[in-house]
Amino acid sequence: MAPKLYAIVVGAGPGTGRASAVRFSKSYPVVVIARNSSSYEAAVKDVTESGGRAIGISADASDPASLDQAFEYISQELPDHKLAAAIYNVSGGYAVKSFVEIKPEELEESLDGNVRGFFHFAQRTLPLLEDAVPHSEHPPTLVVTGATASVRGSAKFATFALGKWAKRGIAQSLAREYGPKGVHVAHAVIDGVIDIPRTSTLYVNGGVSDGKISAISIAETYWSLHTQHRSGFTWEVDIRPYVEKW
Amino acid sequence: MAPKLYAIVVGAGPGTGRASAVRFSKSYPVVVIARNSSSYEAAVKDVTESGGRAIGISADASDPASLDQAFEYISQELPDHKLAAAIYNVSGGYAVKSFVEIKPEELEESLDGNVRGFFHFAQRTLPLLEDAVPHSEHPPTLVVTGATASVRGSAKFATFALGKWAKRGIAQSLAREYGPKGVHVAHAVIDGVIDIPRTSTLYVNGGVSDGKISAISIAETYWSLHTQHRSGFTWEVDIRPYVEKW
Amino acid sequence: MAPKLYAIVVGAGPGTGRASAVRFSKSYPVVVIARNSSSYEAAVKDVTESGGRAIGISADASDPASLDQAFEYISQELPDHKLAAAIYNVSGGYAVKSFVEIKPEELEESLDGNVRGFFHFAQRTLPLLEDAVPHSEHPPTLVVTGATASVRGSAKFATFALGKWAKRGIAQSLAREYGPKGVHVAHAVIDGVIDIPRTSTLYVNGGVSDGKISAISIAETYWSLHTQHRSGFTWEVDIRPYVEKW
Amino acid sequence: MAPKLYAIVVGAGPGTGRASAVRFSKSYPVVVIARNSSSYEAAVKDVTESGGRAIGISADASDPASLDQAFEYISQELPDHKLAAAIYNVSGGYAVKSFVEIKPEELEESLDGNVRGFFHFAQRTLPLLEDAVPHSEHPPTLVVTGATASVRGSAKFATFALGKWAKRGIAQSLAREYGPKGVHVAHAVIDGVIDIPRTSTLYVNGGVSDGKISAISIAETYWSLHTQHRSGFTWEVDIRPYVEKW
Repeated sequence: MAPKLYAIVVGAGPGTGRASAVRFSKSYPVVVIARNSSSYEAAVKDVTESGGRAIGISADASDPASLDQAFEYISQELPDHKLAAAIYNVSGGYAVKSFVEIKPEELEESLDGNVRGFFHFAQRTLPLLEDAVPHSEHPPTLVVTGATASVRGSAKFATFALGKWAKRGIAQSLAREYGPKGVHVAHAVIDGVIDIPRTSTLYVNGGVSDGKISAISIAETYWSLHTQHRSGFTWEVDIRPYVEKW
Repeated sequence: MAPKLYAIVVGAGPGTGRASAVRFSKSYPVVVIARNSSSYEAAVKDVTESGGRAIGISADASDPASLDQAFEYISQELPDHKLAAAIYNVSGGYAVKSFVEIKPEELEESLDGNVRGFFHFAQRTLPLLEDAVPHSEHPPTLVVTGATASVRGSAKFATFALGKWAKRGIAQSLAREYGPKGVHVAHAVIDGVIDIPRTSTLYVNGGVSDGKISAISIAETYWSLHTQHRSGFTWEVDIRPYVEKW
Repeated sequence: MAPKLYAIVVGAGPGTGRASAVRFSKSYPVVVIARNSSSYEAAVKDVTESGGRAIGISADASDPASLDQAFEYISQELPDHKLAAAIYNVSGGYAVKSFVEIKPEELEESLDGNVRGFFHFAQRTLPLLEDAVPHSEHPPTLVVTGATASVRGSAKFATFALGKWAKRGIAQSLAREYGPKGVHVAHAVIDGVIDIPRTSTLYVNGGVSDGKISAISIAETYWSLHTQHRSGFTWEVDIRPYVEKW
Repeated sequence: MAPKLYAIVVGAGPGTGRASAVRFSKSYPVVVIARNSSSYEAAVKDVTESGGRAIGISADASDPASLDQAFEYISQELPDHKLAAAIYNVSGGYAVKSFVEIKPEELEESLDGNVRGFFHFAQRTLPLLEDAVPHSEHPPTLVVTGATASVRGSAKFATFALGKWAKRGIAQSLAREYGPKGVHVAHAVIDGVIDIPRTSTLYVNGGVSDGKISAISIAETYWSLHTQHRSGFTWEVDIRPYVEKW
């Protein structure tokens, strides 16, 4: 009997994480992880209402012990399941400020969300993804959410940029190491404001319709990355509204 | 009544062009263009056999008059149709040779296939794509096939690189001009050998299974670009076999 | 007796070409080439007044026959000289306009200045530079002037971008082919307005002092590229005013 | 009376740091910093022997308190001096290993050398460089040593890449914030093996002469960056041996 498969989304708050959970739940049960249950509860609800199965777990990806507990729990809840897709969508807070005003703890906060969290999450998920290669219809996939700041260090965005650049560097290294094993690692440069409640009052792109990125459209692109044949992997996509200046 | 839609593929020989014609023919009648009918006949056959409609036209995209005739013919064959998708897949020949040995006519050949051909094709299709915006379920799309040589000028590949770089530069400019009009312009960096009869004897990537790119997988990625929501356009994807060194 | 050395600058009008001629004339006699003598006369005058030697030649780099005549003349004027440095500084006209309004002759004009001209100039100078390797204190050098448009295809800049991208692609290929022969090929991305009479009325960067690029500063950077040791070649520099937004 | 100026090099071991100290000491007294005095003693000796003045300080740039002590000492040793140039040349150790084998402490080690160290060093030096703007003949400059791994995440180089990418991201952000203040921030992508005693047994580029990068040539390029006019700043240079494959 073919093993069952599942997907995992860390950073499952409103926006990309939640939409990805819903999209991937059409094919897999989905584990949604966030530091606080309030962040993933809506994702669990959305998945459930659309007929899928979601398991919410409170965990901090930058804390190895916390991540260990999460995977322990997953193995109990989803015995005999293999990991078909993992999405790292932790944003890592940022503040726009002059470089000399950045506090060491803000530097560490960016490193937690973008570097340590991704590092530990990738160390735990990649062996699981590799293990699923012979069993998964689609190549097991690790998708990493990046930002404009992954490829551009703007003035007064140093903390944001350092985390995003580092995360992209790790992801590219992983794509090269794990591609030949059949695991697809892909990075997405999200270049625009995502259309979520928190951004509803932001006035961008002249306020035109679809001037903010639909999280559902990101999730569709993530799914299309996951379903690429292994003879034609994409390492990186950029995603932006049709009206975005770039 | 909603207008009917169609797609057009120029450079419809074996590989990406033919596979794209088949993929897009699931939703649209497809016009396939090549300089010689022998190049597109298989595409017409494949589309027809899979239940779609294909119209083959012999034309040279680098010759405006030839292109005019082609579009004249299209308007007769597909009256009341609007253009939903255009794929520019002309390869432009290349030879690997020392720079000083390149002949002016080889320079012009690369310019014909990569620059003039794309220039004229884009000038004719972009207004048609723009005209289809209100009528097409998916944002009208111009997909341009590029290569590793689009982003890297390797030693002894000057003619190849100059054409591919120029084409990518045009495509990026068009993405920025036509995005805000609702037309999606996307560029694909094909980084690997495509699995077609002509490459069957090439030994690449250790000869492993799926070490050459399946043209079907490229066509699927092109289709996923075409179906992206306008709030989340991708300008560029890279496509390579899982085992490719990069 | 050590052979004598010389430098050549094509596109020797006001700005980068003229300033480069003056800078390189401190060490070498300099040949300055432009299509019209009116473009290089000031360069000849400046070089002469600063105590150097300049030879002005009217030639069109995009025309092989014209270039042949120029090099014939050089070999008469500078017998027993070897080529230590060549600077390709032809701008190639451009117009900012909607893509569909670009005329085929504007496309060809960009190809002439950026592609054909550089192609023919590089084919003639690279063997001469290679021949000078054992004789030149500094590695013989081909410097190519590029622009922001070499790395960015902006909306309505398609003709400009296609030429600049193509030229950069050729130059990178040449750097990889000729580096191992001891010839240094370098590309400069000029990102800003150059401070010349023609731009005097342009209001950029808030009108602050040094908000336009001093051509002399570009020439100094070109000279520092030329004098790099072969164990540490730079392929590309970007050059922009301290106040430029980028 | 014009204030006196000085330069500072952190990571002043054999190679780039030491050669930069010697090069900049032709114009300025130079402070050389390393964690252990054994690393900078040769730099102090070389500078002194060539007629310059060098001050060696043991400090750990990733430790703010240690850095504070260093600058306290500098202000005593060089009263009334302003900072004309700062070079961040800490390498940050790395190991080539499979991603899943990387230990958290190796991650932190890369972050110490590449991110925290640079962060703290830049926070302390940028205000000093800004303060020197009206007093320095050449624009006060912060030069950051990067590597191939700053722009490429190779397989099994994840720790190396994450640190170098992050450092480049910070540096680019700083270039954009401090350029308009008249401070030049520049990043160097060192793409090759540096010719130092530690690498003497490495066989690279076929063992040809000058197949490893002369540290002196890097120092010359750093000096040429420092002496650029503010109307023509270069943000980034790549530096590689003429025979390097890239």
